Amino acid sequence: MQAASAAEPARLYYFHGRGRAEQSRWVLAAAEVPFVNMCLSTSAEFAALKRQGKLIFGQVPLLELDGLRLVQSQAILRHVARTRNIAGADEREQALADQLAEACSDFRSALLGLPFNGNTQACASAVQRYAPIFESLLSESRQWVAAGQGMTYADALLAEAVTGYSELFGDAWLSELPRLKAHRDRVCALPGVAAYLSSPLRFPFPAGKVAEKYVQNVSTVLS
Amino acid sequence: MQAASAAEPARLYYFHGRGRAEQSRWVLAAAEVPFVNMCLSTSAEFAALKRQGKLIFGQVPLLELDGLRLVQSQAILRHVARTRNIAGADEREQALADQLAEACSDFRSALLGLPFNGNTQACASAVQRYAPIFESLLSESRQWVAAGQGMTYADALLAEAVTGYSELFGDAWLSELPRLKAHRDRVCALPGVAAYLSSPLRFPFPAGKVAEKYVQNVSTVLS
Repeated sequence: MQAASAAEPARLYYFHGRGRAEQSRWVLAAAEVPFVNMCLSTSAEFAALKRQGKLIFGQVPLLELDGLRLVQSQAILRHVARTRNIAGADEREQALADQLAEACSDFRSALLGLPFNGNTQACASAVQRYAPIFESLLSESRQWVAAGQGMTYADALLAEAVTGYSELFGDAWLSELPRLKAHRDRVCALPGVAAYLSSPLRFPFPAGKVAEKYVQNVSTVLS
Repeated sequence: MQAASAAEPARLYYFHGRGRAEQSRWVLAAAEVPFVNMCLSTSAEFAALKRQGKLIFGQVPLLELDGLRLVQSQAILRHVARTRNIAGADEREQALADQLAEACSDFRSALLGLPFNGNTQACASAVQRYAPIFESLLSESRQWVAAGQGMTYADALLAEAVTGYSELFGDAWLSELPRLKAHRDRVCALPGVAAYLSSPLRFPFPAGKVAEKYVQNVSTVLS
């Protein structure tokens, strides 16, 4: 089996849901890289990927892009960022974007666990801890979180986390965080991101029956 | 308070121990970047760093280097790698080094928890899971893990993890992993790494009394 060629859309292998692949979907969308979700439904499909040597560490997500097979969710999104010029314009911006991206992963980690543990309190704590810090990094003259002059992948990751918490809690928590709200709206209005969010590539928020089905899917594939 | 200038050694703020700063120490050493440990002893020192606005997310490690204040342990080591040309020579190597670096962090995470939970079983499981995979990536013609022709920061991180597990278990577990053992020896013989490991900058392995003292230090600073 060949990795996807440059002419084909990138292929993102994961479960039927957001999980550890969702940040990569937002970064691909922000960079306007066409991709398709390759969703695993059975343990046999997962075993086949491993047998083909596609999963070095036996884990998904796997992204096939640029003739490469990329694993490790955070390495995947940084590859997209580096090669599509949204990793920061110079060493300083790259360092800042990188540390903010790491913090966004911390910020969203309670959302990652939510379908499995139902811990909305952890989500509320994450919002309380991180949201004011990100608010303070934004201003009238600083509309992007890591770089004065342009969007970086850290912006996509921040908007991903904010959007997720708003799907859970509504937008009320953003009422005292106007710059963060405007930032979220700005990122969601980027052509690639807007197209992604209104497409079938976007999975619904994992609550209720959606969460149950997703947890069952993950459990079946890993069994 | 000014960030360290280029003429001064880099300053790495952390507790009195390895923890989340140790990977950065190895990468700094491999890149031959002079640094000093700025070890926190009291909660007042930690509060002062926060008050000075040095810790965006209220966490250490913090590295002052290149006139920058860098937080988030993984972002720190990637900044060092990018700016000292050990992040991979091209897009492909960069992607591979990045995903292997992420896997090294997974590999060592049981060691990170060890002084706090004493869970040597988790350490044994990590070795069993990851060591054969890294062994399979090395060969006679591939002496560095991410790039055929030269060392990357992923090599420093792999050797860091292997060295840690050997301090815990001895070298016996490496007897059936000759390429991994040779890789560890190769990295530890790099001038910068050899100098670091024999210097007072290197903290002892956190077992027994050393672990107790380290856990007490972390607890005091965070109190």
